[in-house]
Amino acid sequence: MTSTIFIIFGITGDLAGRKLLPALLSLYVKKQLPLKFAIVGFSRRLFSKEEFRDYIRGHINIRSGQFKEEDIKHFIDHMYYEQGLFDKSESYSNLAFRLKTIDDGFKQCSNKLFHLSIPPILYESIFDFLSRSSLTIPCRGNEGWTRILVEKPFGNDIDTAKRIDKKLGEHFDENQIFRIDHYLAKEALQNILAFRFTNSLFEPLWNHNHIDKIHIKLLEKIGVENRGAFYDNIGALKDVGQNHMLQMLALVAMEAPDKFDAENIRKERSKILNHLMPITPKNVGSRIVKGQYEGYRLEQGVREYTKTETYFRLETYINTPRWKDIPFYLESGKALADTKTEIDIYFKNPNTVDEEKQNILTFRIQPDEGIKIRFWVKTPGFEMKVEPKTLKFKYADFPSLLVLPDAYERVLYDAITGDQTLFTSTEEVLNAWKYITSVISSWGNVPLTLYKKGAVEVI
Amino acid sequence: MTSTIFIIFGITGDLAGRKLLPALLSLYVKKQLPLKFAIVGFSRRLFSKEEFRDYIRGHINIRSGQFKEEDIKHFIDHMYYEQGLFDKSESYSNLAFRLKTIDDGFKQCSNKLFHLSIPPILYESIFDFLSRSSLTIPCRGNEGWTRILVEKPFGNDIDTAKRIDKKLGEHFDENQIFRIDHYLAKEALQNILAFRFTNSLFEPLWNHNHIDKIHIKLLEKIGVENRGAFYDNIGALKDVGQNHMLQMLALVAMEAPDKFDAENIRKERSKILNHLMPITPKNVGSRIVKGQYEGYRLEQGVREYTKTETYFRLETYINTPRWKDIPFYLESGKALADTKTEIDIYFKNPNTVDEEKQNILTFRIQPDEGIKIRFWVKTPGFEMKVEPKTLKFKYADFPSLLVLPDAYERVLYDAITGDQTLFTSTEEVLNAWKYITSVISSWGNVPLTLYKKGAVEVI
Repeated sequence: MTSTIFIIFGITGDLAGRKLLPALLSLYVKKQLPLKFAIVGFSRRLFSKEEFRDYIRGHINIRSGQFKEEDIKHFIDHMYYEQGLFDKSESYSNLAFRLKTIDDGFKQCSNKLFHLSIPPILYESIFDFLSRSSLTIPCRGNEGWTRILVEKPFGNDIDTAKRIDKKLGEHFDENQIFRIDHYLAKEALQNILAFRFTNSLFEPLWNHNHIDKIHIKLLEKIGVENRGAFYDNIGALKDVGQNHMLQMLALVAMEAPDKFDAENIRKERSKILNHLMPITPKNVGSRIVKGQYEGYRLEQGVREYTKTETYFRLETYINTPRWKDIPFYLESGKALADTKTEIDIYFKNPNTVDEEKQNILTFRIQPDEGIKIRFWVKTPGFEMKVEPKTLKFKYADFPSLLVLPDAYERVLYDAITGDQTLFTSTEEVLNAWKYITSVISSWGNVPLTLYKKGAVEVI
Repeated sequence: MTSTIFIIFGITGDLAGRKLLPALLSLYVKKQLPLKFAIVGFSRRLFSKEEFRDYIRGHINIRSGQFKEEDIKHFIDHMYYEQGLFDKSESYSNLAFRLKTIDDGFKQCSNKLFHLSIPPILYESIFDFLSRSSLTIPCRGNEGWTRILVEKPFGNDIDTAKRIDKKLGEHFDENQIFRIDHYLAKEALQNILAFRFTNSLFEPLWNHNHIDKIHIKLLEKIGVENRGAFYDNIGALKDVGQNHMLQMLALVAMEAPDKFDAENIRKERSKILNHLMPITPKNVGSRIVKGQYEGYRLEQGVREYTKTETYFRLETYINTPRWKDIPFYLESGKALADTKTEIDIYFKNPNTVDEEKQNILTFRIQPDEGIKIRFWVKTPGFEMKVEPKTLKFKYADFPSLLVLPDAYERVLYDAITGDQTLFTSTEEVLNAWKYITSVISSWGNVPLTLYKKGAVEVI
């Protein structure tokens, strides 16, 4: 593989230490990074080279014993630091010089990935600076590509999202832009497509004739913890609804792509998002529950009289022949009874109106990743009675598997190799915002339900 | 419940001690027999009343500790013995007198079940004697019905089967005749209908568009053991093919009945058997494998140069729209590598010609009764590879269940209560024979494959 430089904006931030660097370290140890690679951290803080490497060693979030000390040391030897300000032209020149120096050392024009691990508010100006400093241009002809990795949230509503995309589009081609929704890279999510399209048992039933409803849940026991100030500005719907949950919906609902490649899969995901029927002021009352847990307003960083939702439940319809009149429930919240992310697919039972007698296929995303199906079998005995039994498999049952690779490993690996399947396209982001904006602009008058911490249900 | 007398012809035989009496004892202990009941054993041997009861205590096949000694004693207190010859008119008069005496004691005209636990060769003459002695007639008007229970094999070919049925029909109505194929009463077999028609996941796929083939197996490790003389006269096809295996086929392949009652279920089972496409001298070569294990000819009671099959595999087609061109494989044999009875349903996978990528639904009849489905899931990792995983449930997982009720308990209980669902109708027997006779009359020239004991496959 061509030599590659990974440039992380905001290297001292939480995400870098918690996710990016452990993922890169793991890829390094598994020899899945190019032989010649470097990581350049870019931040405001002043560090000497040694201070920086010590800082990284202290902040890289790995379990004791997970990697050999020697491997960690060698990995950190590939790391460099560039102090600078994100809004100073000069800092970008320095960064460019730093990259040139590394390239010279490699005797090659390296590929470059810019990861923006910083508040989205800074995105636009950084795109401009990157572009103006020519950092986005390959060094020579087609050699040494450049890619940009951005993290959700992609904007704050359809307008800001469009503005960011316009700006991105000015400086980058679609194939240079990697929008990370790390949910898409989770094994259990990738398995949705594998499962749907490899098992011929399901595809014939995957439509409004045989499916009754689909329930997508992302529930958490924890509250906002130390993310109060950030969270209070966006709320549950934008935090996970606009991205993770709509991505899950897209994977479950999408048509079979013509080919199983990035372009076609992204196109089909996007189509589904485009066909979400908008929420209107007229139907919002019956389609939405909005909640806030008791005590949320006392959390650090949260406004005293905030109306930000920490819970939502949306009843959504998709305007395609396949999904005619089938409700998709999107439900997410904090400070609930249980932590789990799963997708429940309820199959119609023409012989009964009794919901209890339905078959349910469940994709469990986390924890305990796996798949289960609720069947009905005869209760042993003289009466003809049936009872539910669950057939299941868990990822934990893969014998050779100690730990599932973290989604970020996959994300970064794919960004290096250029596979965009697990990244959200510009079109997807805008279609998701189109729907979410219809919710936000309609739900102002929906009353906020207060619920107790640890609630099982919010009504 | 009306008082009931159970008359067992051949009480000293193997079946009575091994199956009938333990089943009746278990029903007694669970209070599922009428309060007033008696069992009358009818056999050639001379016994005093006490000798008879001692003999029964010694021959009733139960596990030590399975029942309380007190319960066993009370159960045996309900047993009487009538010595007689099956071909002597006088014996039937004596039996009639005995039953009258018991009825007098009950101060009631009891229901009467005659169980023929004797070689089928004797059936016809016994039917005549029973009828001539008026034992088949209710004592008074509609009070105290009489029923006759017969065991397989129901004849030796279509002609003898027709003759027996004709004879039965002269003396009994269809609703008095209970032909026991105890396989039908197995929990795992009953579950086939419960599973097919309660789980809406499967019925839409249950046809030639979605199913590739169905494989019904009844495999045994043991050889003929002490049944050599009996077995050598009939062979594997008549021993289990004509009855158990065709019943399994009927349950898997039948249409949904209009109502889930005995009449309609039996009608649908029978229809399927009637639509089995006959084997002809022309197609027999490609459709049938016939085998005999090495050493079979040395088994006790087996003829020196016998060509009786101890193994068969049939490729069968059903001439209905649902099953157009779908092969059903019926495979059974003795002295094989494994003991198992199961039904494998292979689902077509339109995306692949690779049989390995199919979904398979398995009904395991015995041992380890249960259901499993082979699915394909993504192998964790960066590649898009899938691997098979089995989702399963076992009857052993029913928490409250120590032992599945034996099929004979169910059979006898249903005979008492008059539910004929789990018994084979006259029509079913004749349709099964029609097909089996087409095999027998065509397969004379099919070479007999010799296979080693413990063979995994017979080709």
